[in-house]
Amino acid sequence: MKDGCHLQFIGTVHSALKTLDECPLLENENAPGAAIVILPEFLEGIRHLRPGTAVVLLTWLHHADRKVLQCRPRNNPVATMTGVFSTRSPDRPNPIGLHCTKVTSVSGNSITVSELEVIDGTPLIDIKPAL
Amino acid sequence: MKDGCHLQFIGTVHSALKTLDECPLLENENAPGAAIVILPEFLEGIRHLRPGTAVVLLTWLHHADRKVLQCRPRNNPVATMTGVFSTRSPDRPNPIGLHCTKVTSVSGNSITVSELEVIDGTPLIDIKPAL
Repeated sequence: MKDGCHLQFIGTVHSALKTLDECPLLENENAPGAAIVILPEFLEGIRHLRPGTAVVLLTWLHHADRKVLQCRPRNNPVATMTGVFSTRSPDRPNPIGLHCTKVTSVSGNSITVSELEVIDGTPLIDIKPAL
Repeated sequence: MKDGCHLQFIGTVHSALKTLDECPLLENENAPGAAIVILPEFLEGIRHLRPGTAVVLLTWLHHADRKVLQCRPRNNPVATMTGVFSTRSPDRPNPIGLHCTKVTSVSGNSITVSELEVIDGTPLIDIKPAL
């Protein structure tokens, strides 16, 4: 087995959340809406995306510390140090964010969604319909 | 923004599913259980994983065609060609599989799960607790 592979960024999130301190600790905790700009070479892939569709967005949490293997859940200083694969910490070997949200508009290369808890400038790596 | 980044494989799936033809088309459609062997450098991250835990596994669907931007959903030959970001097709720019399953055992570097719809040899990239 190879030790890894190259991940392609397909777009960028534009958000009112400008710093990590502003980000909710868990999914859908009062996150604001956001806009996503898709790169030209991937536009064909969003051709059938429609407003109202429930989706799972996968993002690359680019400020994460990829060397972390244990952390205190939800930044609680009295919590036990816990293996990151038992937590939702962004600090982990592959800091992929999973976000359940809803498409509110699609126009050209821009998609808006109802809520997204990542900071401005976060790369997008995939969009899947929710099951 | 950079155009991408390096994804690290953290382990490998061992499954009775040996070919793509044997794989269910959608998550949890009668998939068999599987074992996952975690690489030594990431073992600290699974220290608190316990049997019975509901998890989301992220895999790298290494046989996927990453150039595909449109496909016919569920391999249905009469379906309309659809942008891949409106489908769960493994053929997409970043072929990341999302799998809701349950941990059934953890022993040393090996984890077993109750069901997993990927073929033998698929790289694992992340484990998250289900929300």
